[in-house]
Formats: sequence, structure tokens, C-alpha cells
Amino acid sequence: MSKTLHLTAFMRPVSLHTGAWRYPGAYADANFNFGHLKSFIQKLERAKFDAFFMADHLAVLNMPVEALKRSHTVTSFEPFTLLSALAAVTDKIGLAATASTTFDEPYHVARRFASLDHISGGRAAWNIVTTSNPDAARNFGLSEHVEHGERYQRAREFFDVVTGLWDSFADDAIIRDQESGIFFDPEKLHVLDHKGEEFSVRGPLNIARPVQGWPVIVQAGQSEPGKQLAAETAELVFAAPRDLATAKALYADIKGRMPAAGRNPAHLKILPAAMIVIGDSVDEAKAKRAHLDSLVHYDSAIASLSIALGHDASGFDPDAPLPDNIPDTNASKSGRAQVLRLAEQEKLTVRQLAQRYGGYAGLALIGTPKTIADEMETWLNEEASDGFTCVFPFLPQGLDDVTEKLVPELQRRGLFRKDYEGSTLREHLGLSRPANRFFPA
Amino acid sequence: MSKTLHLTAFMRPVSLHTGAWRYPGAYADANFNFGHLKSFIQKLERAKFDAFFMADHLAVLNMPVEALKRSHTVTSFEPFTLLSALAAVTDKIGLAATASTTFDEPYHVARRFASLDHISGGRAAWNIVTTSNPDAARNFGLSEHVEHGERYQRAREFFDVVTGLWDSFADDAIIRDQESGIFFDPEKLHVLDHKGEEFSVRGPLNIARPVQGWPVIVQAGQSEPGKQLAAETAELVFAAPRDLATAKALYADIKGRMPAAGRNPAHLKILPAAMIVIGDSVDEAKAKRAHLDSLVHYDSAIASLSIALGHDASGFDPDAPLPDNIPDTNASKSGRAQVLRLAEQEKLTVRQLAQRYGGYAGLALIGTPKTIADEMETWLNEEASDGFTCVFPFLPQGLDDVTEKLVPELQRRGLFRKDYEGSTLREHLGLSRPANRFFPA
Ligand SMILES: Cc1cc2nc3c(=O)[nH]c(=O)nc-3n(C[C@H](O)[C@H](O)[C@H](O)COP(=O)(O)O)c2cc1C
Ligand SMILES: Cc1cc2nc3c(=O)[nH]c(=O)nc-3n(C[C@H](O)[C@H](O)[C@H](O)COP(=O)(O)O)c2cc1C
Repeated sequence: MSKTLHLTAFMRPVSLHTGAWRYPGAYADANFNFGHLKSFIQKLERAKFDAFFMADHLAVLNMPVEALKRSHTVTSFEPFTLLSALAAVTDKIGLAATASTTFDEPYHVARRFASLDHISGGRAAWNIVTTSNPDAARNFGLSEHVEHGERYQRAREFFDVVTGLWDSFADDAIIRDQESGIFFDPEKLHVLDHKGEEFSVRGPLNIARPVQGWPVIVQAGQSEPGKQLAAETAELVFAAPRDLATAKALYADIKGRMPAAGRNPAHLKILPAAMIVIGDSVDEAKAKRAHLDSLVHYDSAIASLSIALGHDASGFDPDAPLPDNIPDTNASKSGRAQVLRLAEQEKLTVRQLAQRYGGYAGLALIGTPKTIADEMETWLNEEASDGFTCVFPFLPQGLDDVTEKLVPELQRRGLFRKDYEGSTLREHLGLSRPANRFFPA
Repeated sequence: MSKTLHLTAFMRPVSLHTGAWRYPGAYADANFNFGHLKSFIQKLERAKFDAFFMADHLAVLNMPVEALKRSHTVTSFEPFTLLSALAAVTDKIGLAATASTTFDEPYHVARRFASLDHISGGRAAWNIVTTSNPDAARNFGLSEHVEHGERYQRAREFFDVVTGLWDSFADDAIIRDQESGIFFDPEKLHVLDHKGEEFSVRGPLNIARPVQGWPVIVQAGQSEPGKQLAAETAELVFAAPRDLATAKALYADIKGRMPAAGRNPAHLKILPAAMIVIGDSVDEAKAKRAHLDSLVHYDSAIASLSIALGHDASGFDPDAPLPDNIPDTNASKSGRAQVLRLAEQEKLTVRQLAQRYGGYAGLALIGTPKTIADEMETWLNEEASDGFTCVFPFLPQGLDDVTEKLVPELQRRGLFRKDYEGSTLREHLGLSRPANRFFPA
């Protein structure tokens, strides 16, 4: 069989693009409106998407209040409450949630994902994040953010504890023999008794082994330790390359680390995040994107550009190109290099560049269903990705365009499933069910 | 209008009674079967119950493995995932979840309840627990349990932080003016900046104010500091009196503390937990309870009795009365006094007493719909309670008996609503919506 794509949706209720709530026809109230979220996920399930993923942050995003007041991102649903509610109104689509290894506890995280996996019949996935937003630390009793390397060290041990807790019960531990009165076989219960550098957790978990054995492990870190954690633990990577070349390099890099970690590269799917803007012509699609970007108020836009540059950009001429010789700072070296590259590539004015950063600055696939399907096919064949984490520019229309126009085109080409073959997220992704480390089959 | 009852359901998926999974017709698999939970709550909603409450513990219950292996309580759903899923398949019934102030973080707890309240349209309630199970501490990095007084001190501050975070946004902060591009009014955002003894939490919450202002506050602690916390903060108390006399004393005690705390006693509803066993005759109901208790294996039963006594009871003669002069220990003074009282009152053998403790040892209302309705009416009129937290002996039958036989009897007497009048849990309970402390109306 030739290779096929995996597709997940990377969502905020209103869209990841901060201007989206002002787009004509947009559901500006989706942050509070469960009915909208239900309709989104049900459409994605009808289109046979692998999974639905809700972004999550442990603080209001760090922007000056002048920018913040224009952003729909100040309020959202919490992912476990949202995804559990969505589990009850869907049957097949995977449900991916973020949980922070820096600001949460392994026992809580293990329980919640195990529970979501039981409720959903094996559709849960855990996006392991170390939480990069420094404002989050201040909501959890710290005055300074935990240092990057330590966050990743803690993440690695956190993973070991959580997966160990999921393995507390053997798959066949629960007997439930009403006659003899034995509910479970105590020989098939393992008390973890973890004592490590960061955590000491006795166990066992008070939930039977998840339907999938372990919920699918997701990673979206982009740094060296992020990529290494992915190679050691992840089964799905939400990546953020800017173009085909960087995607190929990232793909080879992460998969190349896997054999040394004792893993088969086929057991990890890498899905770059891509905003998808569809038009009847490429020009129409470009015009939609330009209109969307123009809805980002200049105050918000310039604040975001300043963060990306690590330098206050509010004094620049909005309608001129980015000035040369912006003083260097420590704040964000790789971020700044990206800004300069983008300004150069697309010949953007300060205003356009700022609106790009204030709106959504990641990879975008912009065109007709045919041109986008062509691009996706190229990425798949050139080993730049195993599919995409789709970002919708505005909702519901941007999502409808993908499910009603792009997906049928991909299906016609044999690049995407016409129906689900299995019922768990692992089955959709072609991932095997992990053995229980304490009770090997 | 004459007084009416409030009814909530206090649940474990299979029942709180540990022998229930062996009762004829019981759903022994309800711990894993979301469909069963969905049918339970939908029946309770059709019967117009105020709320559904799921018990929660942060460890496998502390019993010897010989007892544990016979208990369906080793595995369950986690309450946020479960209640959120149930929110999506119900419209009116309240959803109460436990969150521990000892082993969780105010920012997480505030977010999850706010999110559940938004998803459910104003039906969330937070049962503030300090977590009495010492095994829980060992799942969260501690070798010793946090001391009782300190747990309650932390709980009080935890409440202040959580409610302060819920008040981050004024009720009318979110403007969403697509034309001007202003999403919310920054004057109506409060940064909490809490710095206390136990917590330092900056805020603001990244969720708009809950539909109910604050989710309903529930408390179930029984100690002095537990009752004081209830008087200061709670709007609903799950109580555990043994009989009418202790219930009246408790009711007067907690409500009597409220004026000094600046509160109106009408703003707190006290609902004793009661297991309800219904028969066509009182004798039939008693026989059902005796059969249910007999399903608790002696090994489990005696382990539970030993915990309640703070003394190993496995050497006692099962078919004789409880021996005199059981040596005193520090472990559980009030627990032991209760055991002795019960043994005396009902003239139980060690086996029967053990099976009572191993099964469900709390208050039980056992009889016909008429006799139970009579008892409930007495409790209401004598100011022993504002209603009941119903425990079902076995499921589904024990629940069906309540919704199909007892509730109609209560409705006939005008003691219970025939339909919901409002749509939020606060409205069902007759509680007012709290003002925002930072943005008074
Ligand atoms: C597609 C994608 C989705 C992400 N979603 C989240 C999220 O929901 N919550 C979060 O805290 N971080 C999220 N991140 C951020 C990453 O977890 C990570 O913190 C960031 O990429 C910086 O990587 P580093 O910490 O390895 O330097 C996401 C990243 C990508 C690429
Ligand atoms: C009806 C009822 C329900 C309770 N539910 C829970 C629960 O779900 N989780 C929990 O940890 N404790 C629960 N408790 C225990 C109380 O929160 C409290 O810890 C216990 O009554 C001991 O009180 P104290 O700590 O004030 O001494 C419940 C108590 C009662 C009476």
C-alpha cells in the first residue's frame, strides 16, 4: 500500500489566529459555546480526521494589555473538561489534550488520561508540554520560571512515572467473578514505588489499564531536548517547520535519533502544523489570508512582533520594510532569525509582518484544494511529514473548506482514508498497543 | 410555600456499597462502562434530582490486599472527565465533583470548575475536600500525610484563591465587538496577585467568569474545622449523621456558626447522606439490605471493621457479639465510638457488624416508599436536613426504586419538585448568584 496522510486538527475554540473572531461569519463566542465545539468535532469526525487537539496554556498569554484586550485567546475551555464532553458526542475521532509536566502531578495526569481513554473507548492522547510561558510559573507559586533544561529532565521522569502508573494493573487483572467474589487478581497489580530525582510516587493508580494500554504520547517541543524527548517517548509529533526543507531536516533529525533510543522510526508520526486557507483560485485564497491578517489591530500586531524580535518595534514606520540593524538581545535568537527570513522572503512591510506575527506566524498552505493536495503529497513523498496538524484560519468556514473541499480531493487521490478501519486512536495512527512493562504478554 | 426537599445522588459507578457488584442484576462493569453512567444520570434528571455527585479518592483505598481484591472500588473514573462527559448528555441536573485542597493547585481547580460550569451551562459544584486517606500523600511525593489542622488552614486559603480567580473577569467584561476589534474591557479584568501563607498565585484566570458566578461550594468534612469551613464557605453540606438526633444537632451546629461568619443560614443546604433501600414491605427492604451485606466477604469485612476500630478484629469470633474491653488506640476515637453504638443498637454479631462496615456503614433509610417519605418529611420538618444525598445500595435497581417509587411519592406530597424551574444548579438549590468581589454590581 502506498503511503497515506494522517490529519489532526489543532484548535482554539475561535481559531489560533487572533484576528479570526472578526472575520465575516466567524463564531466570535466559541470560547463559551460548547455547541460550536460539538459541531466542529462532529464535522471532523465525518471527514475521518485522526484526532482533535485543543491548545492549552496555564496563564493568559503574555502580551501587553493593549494587545490582549483585542484577543479572543484570553478565555477558553480547559482541555480535560472540553475533550471529555466531546468524547460523549463522538465515536471514533482521537482526543488529544495538553498536560504540563512542569506544573502538574504525575498521579493526576495519569488518572485523567486513563479516565478519558476509558470514557472514549481508547481515543485519548497526551501532549507532553514543559510549558514555555513564563507567566504560568507565577500562577503556581514560583516567582521565576523553571529553567529549560530542568523542565525537560522533569518531563522525562514524569513520562516514566505516568506510564508506570498506567501499567499498575495487568490487562487481564480485573476478573469480576460475582460467584467467588474476586474483583481482581492481586498478583496482577503492581505497586510502582517510584523514587526518582524529581518525583516520589507510590501508586498503584486507582484506574484499570487504559483501553489503549497507554494513551498515545504526543510531543511538540522544538528545542534539542524537545526533539530528544520526542525520539525517546513520542508516537506523534506536532512540529512547526517553516518550509519543506526545514521539515525534511526535522523529520530526518527526530527519526534518526530513534534507533539509538531503541525505537523503530515507524512508531512515530510527525505532523507539521499548517494553517490551511482554501480558495477557488490561489489568488482568492491569498486574498482571504490578507484580509484575515488585516483584522489584527496594529497595537496587538506590533506587540507580538516586538516579542518575536526581542525588541520594541512600536517606533518603526508601519508602511516601510523592517529597518536594518535592530539591536541584538538575548531574548529570542531563533525567533528573531525567523522574522528576518520571513520579511525577506515575502517582502512584507512592518505592518504586514506585525500582523502576521500577531495573527498566526506558522507554516501556511494557501491555494485551491488541488494545489494544497499537491503540496501535501509532496511533503509525504519527500519524507517531510506523515501528515498535517491542520490549523483553521477562521471558523466555521475555514474548517468546512477543509472537510468539504480538501479532504474529498485527498480521498480521490488515495492519500486519505474514506472510513475509519479501527476504533482507537492507535489504530487510526497505525501504532501498536504497548506491552505492560510489569506484566509482559 | 411549605418547605421542600433537595435531593442529590452520591455515587460510585457500581455503588458505594462494596458488595453491590455481586447483587443479582448489578452492573459489575460500571467502573468502565460510560453507557451505564449515562443511563444513571439521565434517570436522575428525569426524576428532577438537584445534582449528581461522584465520590473521588487519590489512591486505591487503604485496605489489605486480601480485602481489596474483593472490592470494585479499586478502579473508577476520574470525576472531571466523567462529569464533563455526562454534562454533554444532560441539560439540567447539577454536576458535583470533588477536588482536593491538599494535593491540587488553586489555578488548576479554578480552571476546571469554571470550564465545567461553562460547558454545562451553570451546573458545576465543587466539593472541597482536604483528603483524609493517608495513602494519597504517598502518591504526591510525601512520606507522611499533611497534618489535619494544616490541611484545613490550607483549604480555607485555597477557597479564597479559587473564588478570587473566578472573579478575574467582571460578568460584563467580554464585549466581543467585531467592529471596533475590542474583545474585552481591560478595566474589567482583575489581576489577583494573591500572596498568602500557603499560596502565591498571580492570576488572572484564563477563563471568563463562570455562568453561576461561582460554581456551588460543597463541603463534607465532619470535624470541628470541617464544620467551621462549611459555615464560612459552603452552600451545600454532605453530612454523615447516624440518626435524627445527631442530624438535628449537626444542622443547628453548622447553621448556628453562620451568622458569626457574616452569612445567612438560608444560604446553606445540609443534605445528610442516606442509603435508601426500598421494598414492597419494610421486611422485604430489610431482607434486601441483609442480603446485600452478606455479599461482603468476611476477609474484606473484617479488614474494614479493624480500620474502624483501630484494632485488628480478625481474631474475634464471627458469630458472637463484639468482645468487651477492646484495647484503646489513638487511631480513630470517634470511629470506634460509632462502632460500639451500632453494635449495641442493632445487636449485631461480629460478622454482621463487619459486613456493615465492609459494605456501607452510614445512615440508611429502609422501608417502603411511604415509610421512607414519612422519615424524610420528619427530618425536613424537624430541621435535621434540607434534603438528602441519596446513596443507592445497588445499581441499577436501587436507583430505579428511588426514581420510580420514592420520588413520585414525594412529589404527591408536595415535598419535591415535579419539574425544574431554573436551569442552573444554584437555581435548583435556591441559592443566589455571588457578586464579583472586585466588581460589585
Ligand atoms: C503544533 C504545536 C502545538 C503546541 N501546543 C502547545 C500547547 O497546547 N500548550 C503549550 O503549553 N505548548 C504548546 N506548544 C509549545 C511546545 O510544547 C513547546 O513549548 C514549544 O514548541 C517550545 O519548545 P521547546 O520548549 O522545546 O523550546 C505547541 C507547539 C507546537 C509546534
Ligand atoms: C457524603 C460524604 C461524601 C464524601 N465524599 C468524599 C470524596 O469524594 N472524597 C474524599 O476525599 N472525601 C470525601 N468525604 C470525606 C470528607 O471530605 C472528610 O474528609 C471526612 O468526612 C473526614 O472529615 P474531617 O477531615 O473533617 O475529619 C465525604 C464525606 C461525606 C460525609
